Amino acid sequence: MQVLAEVVGTYMLVFIGCGSALINRVQPLGTVGMAMAWGFVLMAAIYAVGHISGAHFNPAVTVALAAIRRFRWKEVPMYVLGQLLGATLASLTLKVLFHKQPDIIPIATQYAAATTDLEAFLWEFIITFILMFSICANTTDHRASPGLAGFAIGSTLLVNALVAGPITGASMNPARSIGPAVAAGVYKNLWLYILAPVLGALFAAMVYSGLRVPKPTAASADDKDMTAQG
Amino acid sequence: MQVLAEVVGTYMLVFIGCGSALINRVQPLGTVGMAMAWGFVLMAAIYAVGHISGAHFNPAVTVALAAIRRFRWKEVPMYVLGQLLGATLASLTLKVLFHKQPDIIPIATQYAAATTDLEAFLWEFIITFILMFSICANTTDHRASPGLAGFAIGSTLLVNALVAGPITGASMNPARSIGPAVAAGVYKNLWLYILAPVLGALFAAMVYSGLRVPKPTAASADDKDMTAQG
Amino acid sequence: MQVLAEVVGTYMLVFIGCGSALINRVQPLGTVGMAMAWGFVLMAAIYAVGHISGAHFNPAVTVALAAIRRFRWKEVPMYVLGQLLGATLASLTLKVLFHKQPDIIPIATQYAAATTDLEAFLWEFIITFILMFSICANTTDHRASPGLAGFAIGSTLLVNALVAGPITGASMNPARSIGPAVAAGVYKNLWLYILAPVLGALFAAMVYSGLRVPKPTAASADDKDMTAQG
Amino acid sequence: MQVLAEVVGTYMLVFIGCGSALINRVQPLGTVGMAMAWGFVLMAAIYAVGHISGAHFNPAVTVALAAIRRFRWKEVPMYVLGQLLGATLASLTLKVLFHKQPDIIPIATQYAAATTDLEAFLWEFIITFILMFSICANTTDHRASPGLAGFAIGSTLLVNALVAGPITGASMNPARSIGPAVAAGVYKNLWLYILAPVLGALFAAMVYSGLRVPKPTAASADDKDMTAQG
Repeated sequence: MQVLAEVVGTYMLVFIGCGSALINRVQPLGTVGMAMAWGFVLMAAIYAVGHISGAHFNPAVTVALAAIRRFRWKEVPMYVLGQLLGATLASLTLKVLFHKQPDIIPIATQYAAATTDLEAFLWEFIITFILMFSICANTTDHRASPGLAGFAIGSTLLVNALVAGPITGASMNPARSIGPAVAAGVYKNLWLYILAPVLGALFAAMVYSGLRVPKPTAASADDKDMTAQG
Repeated sequence: MQVLAEVVGTYMLVFIGCGSALINRVQPLGTVGMAMAWGFVLMAAIYAVGHISGAHFNPAVTVALAAIRRFRWKEVPMYVLGQLLGATLASLTLKVLFHKQPDIIPIATQYAAATTDLEAFLWEFIITFILMFSICANTTDHRASPGLAGFAIGSTLLVNALVAGPITGASMNPARSIGPAVAAGVYKNLWLYILAPVLGALFAAMVYSGLRVPKPTAASADDKDMTAQG
Repeated sequence: MQVLAEVVGTYMLVFIGCGSALINRVQPLGTVGMAMAWGFVLMAAIYAVGHISGAHFNPAVTVALAAIRRFRWKEVPMYVLGQLLGATLASLTLKVLFHKQPDIIPIATQYAAATTDLEAFLWEFIITFILMFSICANTTDHRASPGLAGFAIGSTLLVNALVAGPITGASMNPARSIGPAVAAGVYKNLWLYILAPVLGALFAAMVYSGLRVPKPTAASADDKDMTAQG
Repeated sequence: MQVLAEVVGTYMLVFIGCGSALINRVQPLGTVGMAMAWGFVLMAAIYAVGHISGAHFNPAVTVALAAIRRFRWKEVPMYVLGQLLGATLASLTLKVLFHKQPDIIPIATQYAAATTDLEAFLWEFIITFILMFSICANTTDHRASPGLAGFAIGSTLLVNALVAGPITGASMNPARSIGPAVAAGVYKNLWLYILAPVLGALFAAMVYSGLRVPKPTAASADDKDMTAQG
């Protein structure tokens, strides 16, 4: 049931987010419009399934939460599979709906022409750090404002997409990059869009661990609590 | 009283939403501006009458909620009539205010030139699925964040309008398409804008039924509970 | 103390809102940017002083709330004076900061060239109705979502400004029109921007009165309760 | 721990905010897009560390809160140092990532060509007044809506950036101006971007002190309470 929620949520995220990049070629949304699509669809998806699966939608997030013991390692494989499935189904849907466009791959794993691999890596590392720091603060610390986690995390994605979107596409999410890559059959740069987000998320989770005050009464936290709205 | 709330809410939605498409010809709002109009007016309308009528504003939503027994079938006809009345009154108001524009029909039931019927059907089906999934998650599941349903559902409409607006107009709502069609006397494609949203909403309601945890104490839910902020 | 809050809040509203119309001549914000300025500054101002004065900022709102007995008539004159003072001070500030621009009056009481008086009246009447309906629903009905009134009412202003901004400037507020008129010494059309908002607000307050469920325990509501976040 | 939170939060703010001004040269975001970056990243940063450090991110805010005894003077130096460190690290990161751009200083301490020092001072004074008034209302008054302080304060920054961004860059924050100045080695006008925000913030804190109703039960407020989400 939790995995189905991850599938649907990741489907929403990738269908709308990558869809906005494809629509942008037909009717300009601009960087602002695409960033709004990413930010607001993440808010929508978190409020839709956050209470079911914790709303990860992102293997880097799932792995980093497991690394700091806020998520069970044994559930990681099914979550990641669900995320990859949702992202791939969404990408295939977009491939059908935009079948007149020759290529759909640049939406996920291509960065601006003048950007080096190292620069792209740095960008993805930093923005994933910011995203994961926001996730840890809002979902693993009992002092955060209840109910507003979805808004706060979506806002973080929105601003990351505003600033890094024109450079790397602002992925921060291996599933969001693998889905379109599989649909298009083009795997160039994919390693970078897997490695940088995972390392950035791990670093953020470690830094926030020095700042966290966990729920005091959580004597025996069950899985649901650990991942609530993550 | 509940039906009057549906009339006013649907009036707000169609007056602002379709009005933004008409203003766009005078002073460009772009796809981003029109999507913001749809998204934020739905938020505004949900917070205005959600506590009165459940804020459906959409026959596809009303029918789908009834199909999963979250709304009484015997109230469906009055709700749908109220929604059609609100949408038609708003469309007639716009017809008067924009009487210098030769046609106002394309705002509701016309899709982009290169789009086939099947593609338009797919688009409307998918985006209504996403919208209805968000509605079910936020209004029929007691685990959702209280108070934020309006924001979450409006965000969902906003991103759907960002991505599908340039293709099909992003209706997702038979009333929102029938109102302008009646005002203009043009009924082309209307069947599609009725059938696809209803099927998409029904499918989403069924999928979410597998994920729902209803309010545990609701031994005898009355109508008000069933439709709260729906 | 309450009146000082109205002065500061109305100052914020007019300084930012009308300021956005003046900046738009220097660096284009477009209709979307100006509507965001109006919507988000109203949210900001409501959350800043809503708990002090009820955040009216608008003589039409103050009068309409008094007419339905949600605000004391004897406090109306001081509130309206405070609103006019705040709006005029903000307009004079803008006049100083934009002293290189020849005229600042069109920001408040001028409508698009092809628009007749009757059309402008209709527009202002309808959008003030929508705004006041949202205010009544969110601030005079105990079933509304606590805390989100500011967001809901600001969203309503935002969408009204998106759709009616290019036609009438989307005033909905006599103070917001009188302030710049006084600063510029031009009073053309001013009657319309006073009469239409007042009538639209009164009509909305009456319609919502048929839908309201007042706080059940409010045996002896004091002023603070009656106007909370209005 | 609180100082580390200020470092990370100010880093986020400056990296995204000033980053949006630099990206704007590559791929236009416009004034609206940059204002959204500033507003939404402040919301994100407040929800990320507001419960840890109070989320000042701004020496003018820290000093003004201390002046009205809502923050301990002896903690001011470490907070300001943390803010300067975060802003400088973010600026150096941007300098590396945008090393192909010849200058990055105009993003912080340069105002529009036709603007005099006095006008720039007035603009910064007024918008910092509005920002600090919003901060005082939402974080030092127990009647404010809990949980929405971050949204309200971010909205205030957003609208200030919409209106004053094209004139002075809408700093309101000495750290946000000093960081890029240090990274670029250009200190022109810097005094103005320190003095005007501090004076504007002090004036707002004094004005709001006449309106505040402090938490009634706070017999012995500890540091955490005094700075909660400030």
